[in-house]
Amino acid sequence: MQKKSNCNNNSLPIIGLDLMGSDEDSSYVLDSLIPILKSLEHSAHFVLFGEEKNEDALKSIPFISYQISSEIVQMDENPLLAVRKKKGSSLHLGMRALKNKEIQAFISMGNTGALMATARLHLDTLPKISRPALLTLLPTKKKEMVLLDVGANTTCKGSHLVEFAAMGIAYQKARGIQNPTVGLLNIGTEAVKGPPELQKAYKMLSKSYPFFQGNVEGRDAFEGLVDVLVTDGFTGNIFLKTSEGIARFLLEKLSAYSQLKELRSRLDYSEYPGALLAGVNGLVIKCHGTAKSASFHHSLTSALYLLEHNFLDTLSQELSSLFSKEH
Amino acid sequence: MQKKSNCNNNSLPIIGLDLMGSDEDSSYVLDSLIPILKSLEHSAHFVLFGEEKNEDALKSIPFISYQISSEIVQMDENPLLAVRKKKGSSLHLGMRALKNKEIQAFISMGNTGALMATARLHLDTLPKISRPALLTLLPTKKKEMVLLDVGANTTCKGSHLVEFAAMGIAYQKARGIQNPTVGLLNIGTEAVKGPPELQKAYKMLSKSYPFFQGNVEGRDAFEGLVDVLVTDGFTGNIFLKTSEGIARFLLEKLSAYSQLKELRSRLDYSEYPGALLAGVNGLVIKCHGTAKSASFHHSLTSALYLLEHNFLDTLSQELSSLFSKEH
Repeated sequence: MQKKSNCNNNSLPIIGLDLMGSDEDSSYVLDSLIPILKSLEHSAHFVLFGEEKNEDALKSIPFISYQISSEIVQMDENPLLAVRKKKGSSLHLGMRALKNKEIQAFISMGNTGALMATARLHLDTLPKISRPALLTLLPTKKKEMVLLDVGANTTCKGSHLVEFAAMGIAYQKARGIQNPTVGLLNIGTEAVKGPPELQKAYKMLSKSYPFFQGNVEGRDAFEGLVDVLVTDGFTGNIFLKTSEGIARFLLEKLSAYSQLKELRSRLDYSEYPGALLAGVNGLVIKCHGTAKSASFHHSLTSALYLLEHNFLDTLSQELSSLFSKEH
Repeated sequence: MQKKSNCNNNSLPIIGLDLMGSDEDSSYVLDSLIPILKSLEHSAHFVLFGEEKNEDALKSIPFISYQISSEIVQMDENPLLAVRKKKGSSLHLGMRALKNKEIQAFISMGNTGALMATARLHLDTLPKISRPALLTLLPTKKKEMVLLDVGANTTCKGSHLVEFAAMGIAYQKARGIQNPTVGLLNIGTEAVKGPPELQKAYKMLSKSYPFFQGNVEGRDAFEGLVDVLVTDGFTGNIFLKTSEGIARFLLEKLSAYSQLKELRSRLDYSEYPGALLAGVNGLVIKCHGTAKSASFHHSLTSALYLLEHNFLDTLSQELSSLFSKEH
């Protein structure tokens, strides 16, 4: 493991980037990244985590330092085994650096399960949070909506969904929205719809959060009725990827219409700004495994935005105040 | 209750239509329906179930008979209570007529839960089926795909998902597809992905069905990789409605492009050909509560198609042969 000494002497944020574990070779990832990092030279410094072979390409770039990972966690590996056995992986290096404050955010497009497990191993969860969740921003007709969980927790209790709501509220507050509205993704609007745990979450949120709007059906999710849409990680993942699938299906038929390109890219999963692992004490962002450079760019600027706006502090404060009412 | 005597003397199929319980007034529903029914005069006869006030409008139409329901099940009513208390509802009348072979198919756009409960009350489930499911056809890039369950069963065991697969296979066989391929809607392609019951279904289908293709992610669902996509009723409903929501979101931006109208209508939930309640011994089709007349038309032609192709027989045969291998 090698580090450049003191790459950041002017208090710019330092962001960690994982070159490993995506569907692409690390050299390819690096090639896409370098121009983006150069464009952000005056906004941040970077620590990259990758293979030995990439080190030379970075030696001449003063605002990038490099750490060599000795092991690679593959996309299809069992997350828990990978985390237990591959202590020299870029995921372990990155999370350790985050824990030790050597970096202020960590962005990876590797194995989601392994990313989460490593985060849980090295980082504390925030007070009142039992289950970190993957949080993402989605475009809707009216405004950007937070959706969580999009894949961290396959099954959830009602109380977990309430935790997710609190994290989504805090996220939107950090984005400047004063009283974020919250909805539960469900198969009907009535309180008695859906599985029992969703009904419990409905009751808890009705009692505790004045801007709770009740259930939102998939059909209405893109109307922009709420600022935060809460669901379990299985449904959220299906929701997110279905949106991508249908958008791709429709927009393929429309490739001639160039004015749609921006819209297409917003609904293309590989260009999403990445999902935030909300609930751990550290800024961890998951890009998709087929992430194009645009996705990296979005993830980076989103990390910078959250750092500037002290997102973790906002989140901790919001959690304390929300939960003091709720529990 | 009044019936015209012997409205069908030339062995045309007789289809039952529920005028009640939609989001629209029954007179409005009837007005949209009459031209459609007239266009199908030589293909089928009809029994309509509705309010007394509509009877006069139908007296002059020889191929339509009418039954007056004394009670209305509302869209937002508790399904089980409604079914227990409102014995004179159009749902009860229709299901009884189906059971007694007075009609060969029943189409309703009323309360889904009440429709299913009434079907379960009056109709037997097919042999080997413990849980009827709502089945629908969706367009994909390559072909029409069966999706089930889209809302009948909020939570499912692995064995239920296998039953759904069998019903989907039978449906596609009735449509002329020789060896329908099957996939499970999941959050990753690996066998170990998703909740435990989905993993069980994966194992069972791997063992028993040679054209099982494994898991399909939401993102790939519209690629047309499989003929039958299996999921629980909660996820399936979210999937279906999310598809509608995002399609509406995208296509709203494209209203100028008239060549997209056909596509839009295919992805508009209110124009879907309706969902088949698969697994009960009778042809029961659920249209959406805001169904436009196009949806009715599709439901009708789809019911006629299934009747012509002896769908229920095919389904029963397929179930026996599939389950003799599986169980």
